Amino acid sequence: MPEKIGWERKDLLGLEDLSKEEIELILNTAESFKEVSERPVKKVPALRGKTVVNLFFESSTRTRTSFELAAKRLSADIVNIAIQASSVSKGETFKDTAKNIEAMKINIIIMRHSASGAPHMLARVVKSSVINAGDGSHEHPTQALLDMFTIKQRKGKIKGLKVSIIGDITHSRVARSNIWGLKKLGAEVTVCGPKTLIPLGIEKLGVKVTYSLKEALDDADAVNILRIQHERQQSGLFPSLREYVNKFGINRDTLQYAKKDLIIMHPGPINRGVELTSEVADGPYSVILDQVTNGIAVRMAVLYLIAQRRA
Amino acid sequence: MPEKIGWERKDLLGLEDLSKEEIELILNTAESFKEVSERPVKKVPALRGKTVVNLFFESSTRTRTSFELAAKRLSADIVNIAIQASSVSKGETFKDTAKNIEAMKINIIIMRHSASGAPHMLARVVKSSVINAGDGSHEHPTQALLDMFTIKQRKGKIKGLKVSIIGDITHSRVARSNIWGLKKLGAEVTVCGPKTLIPLGIEKLGVKVTYSLKEALDDADAVNILRIQHERQQSGLFPSLREYVNKFGINRDTLQYAKKDLIIMHPGPINRGVELTSEVADGPYSVILDQVTNGIAVRMAVLYLIAQRRA
Amino acid sequence: MPEKIGWERKDLLGLEDLSKEEIELILNTAESFKEVSERPVKKVPALRGKTVVNLFFESSTRTRTSFELAAKRLSADIVNIAIQASSVSKGETFKDTAKNIEAMKINIIIMRHSASGAPHMLARVVKSSVINAGDGSHEHPTQALLDMFTIKQRKGKIKGLKVSIIGDITHSRVARSNIWGLKKLGAEVTVCGPKTLIPLGIEKLGVKVTYSLKEALDDADAVNILRIQHERQQSGLFPSLREYVNKFGINRDTLQYAKKDLIIMHPGPINRGVELTSEVADGPYSVILDQVTNGIAVRMAVLYLIAQRRA
Repeated sequence: MPEKIGWERKDLLGLEDLSKEEIELILNTAESFKEVSERPVKKVPALRGKTVVNLFFESSTRTRTSFELAAKRLSADIVNIAIQASSVSKGETFKDTAKNIEAMKINIIIMRHSASGAPHMLARVVKSSVINAGDGSHEHPTQALLDMFTIKQRKGKIKGLKVSIIGDITHSRVARSNIWGLKKLGAEVTVCGPKTLIPLGIEKLGVKVTYSLKEALDDADAVNILRIQHERQQSGLFPSLREYVNKFGINRDTLQYAKKDLIIMHPGPINRGVELTSEVADGPYSVILDQVTNGIAVRMAVLYLIAQRRA
Repeated sequence: MPEKIGWERKDLLGLEDLSKEEIELILNTAESFKEVSERPVKKVPALRGKTVVNLFFESSTRTRTSFELAAKRLSADIVNIAIQASSVSKGETFKDTAKNIEAMKINIIIMRHSASGAPHMLARVVKSSVINAGDGSHEHPTQALLDMFTIKQRKGKIKGLKVSIIGDITHSRVARSNIWGLKKLGAEVTVCGPKTLIPLGIEKLGVKVTYSLKEALDDADAVNILRIQHERQQSGLFPSLREYVNKFGINRDTLQYAKKDLIIMHPGPINRGVELTSEVADGPYSVILDQVTNGIAVRMAVLYLIAQRRA
Repeated sequence: MPEKIGWERKDLLGLEDLSKEEIELILNTAESFKEVSERPVKKVPALRGKTVVNLFFESSTRTRTSFELAAKRLSADIVNIAIQASSVSKGETFKDTAKNIEAMKINIIIMRHSASGAPHMLARVVKSSVINAGDGSHEHPTQALLDMFTIKQRKGKIKGLKVSIIGDITHSRVARSNIWGLKKLGAEVTVCGPKTLIPLGIEKLGVKVTYSLKEALDDADAVNILRIQHERQQSGLFPSLREYVNKFGINRDTLQYAKKDLIIMHPGPINRGVELTSEVADGPYSVILDQVTNGIAVRMAVLYLIAQRRA
């Protein structure tokens, strides 16, 4: 069990706000928890008697399940609340929902919402802690933390590594959280994708931009491949699927000049034959399933640190 | 932990059936449980190894969540079963569903149904205990109990207080349960609303009737504002929303002659700007969020008393 | 608590694969667990810290609830995942779903799917144990095990008994699993139904075939009545409902020559007035609700044996 240490924030809303030390604290804590899920008895009493709510305004089996398991392996009580975003169109109603949940003496609310900033608004109005489980195209901090944790497990460090993020950067909360986190820990980050899907001025975040997949892969230590959201196809910004696959799909050929110890990540669920071929997804570079395993350790760490913080 | 005391009923179906002593027993027991939700470890072992089912034929995130948390904080095992009322049109099938759940050795079934009397029918056919979580426009006993608990916490007593219930009395299970409960504990109850939404002959229950909001608010100690069910608008009984707000909406002006220590309750979710303005909902008279907090204590008490009864 | 004994399989996919000894082991283990659900504290710590997932691609309140209660009474952590079969049309995606769940370090996946063989495919690709909770018209092993358990509880044995299965044999996973299991334990099995709903060549499984209900009931010790799936009516194979009821519906008259100690089973939910009359369903021969009770004991036994197997 990790020692009670210096986490002081009520909420985890994004990696933009966190210091290098806070991110490292989460990653180190996750290391202690990773082993819990390998035990015959996958359970520690750390959060016994704490109440956690999974408040999902957007459905997500994976993230919901990962948090639910993390909470249960910490012995917390967890309740799932799924709300159709359509039924809460007004901000006031959202606030009332929030205040009602708080009034039930909930320690931690894990929230996913299609609107950027929704968890931040929640965090301002409730005394309960809030964990952002993905807000619009803004942040998805636990995903980025598990990505970084996976890199660190594989490479022993993050500082100085070259990490490329490939795909629809504009609409990706995964990209945004990764950029903030990786930069703080000293990685060199390159983003790569169709011109229409890379936000103007993103260089200000300290990343390199390239429209050439070859350049993005060339000397990368880790590659994070974003999921193509088929629903974006209609947006006009998106090339045809065929064109996308031709220029940005990862396959054996595109990897021929890659480093021997490259690792390939993907937040899932993967579109086989689109962002990457099956050969790559199931190949030696892929650490995609490690990410899933690590997701539980990272979420246990976040829940633990928040629950145990000096109040 | 409360002492094992004299609760002997298998079920909690409504407040009409309960004696003054039984209601007081629940309220007193709730007082002991209220503190559990304030603790760092919000959990007592009272119902360990008991099985509770949330059987909801009508969806209700709030009530379901409140009961689920109450059960978990008592260490019970709870399973949620949501059934679309449409799929169980025949009474026999309902009985078969009931007998099947009973056969799984369920201690307590918490049931919500759109048909008045459904939990009573359930209680007759199963040996499991049944808690009515709202049946049609009949009763919603745990809501009324938490309302009374909230009054008692704020006022120190219920006897002799003047309590007004405002809105669509005819279709409100909350109103009905409150009337039964408050009268038994010695409150003076006034109901107030549009003429078309107050049942003829309701005076027989011992309540005063008024169609004037001013009269209902004038010397009230507590006001319970019912939720406007927008779907009733079509019924022909209902005035236009604008007319309703004008005559029965609670705002700063309507409260100008209210007692200084008036408390305002609402079962939620509130329609801001309809039954009451935001100023009132969030103002000094409002105890609406206390009601939510108290709901868990009252439901823990009910679950506890029923589970521990002398069998 | 049962002794740790000789169960060695990773999965329970069907009764076709099991030996007589393995089936008997499950039934004997279920006997030890049956008593747990009768206790005031219905909970044993056998699976504390194990993680179980209910992965249902077809909705089923009964089976899901029975497994959920079984897991909770064993102190396992259980998470429900309901997936609309429509959203996973491709085999690859199914495999990815499977690998993702495995990566969360799940001990046991309980799976229902409309496609025959889906749990077998799952079992091949994951290290987690898989329990088939019904796959297409293939097998439903825990249902057959609870049927056999019920027979054994009532009759003291299975060997040498005459068991008839009545209804749509072709499409019934319950029938198929019962045939495999009962034959292995030495029962004489007769199948009975409309000619169009009994598969050609089923005699090869060692069962007798009859199209006469009278013959099927005549000297039977136990009858298993299958549920009429109304959606099959369109298939062209099915007689009209009226015709079916006339020829294969069980009522007081059809039972007049039955053995005095006949037991009547049905996997539920029953169609009263179709497969059987209410008089029969609620009559002295019926053990339908015992089956529901026994289902939890049998599922606890299966979960326990699989979790405790020599790894």
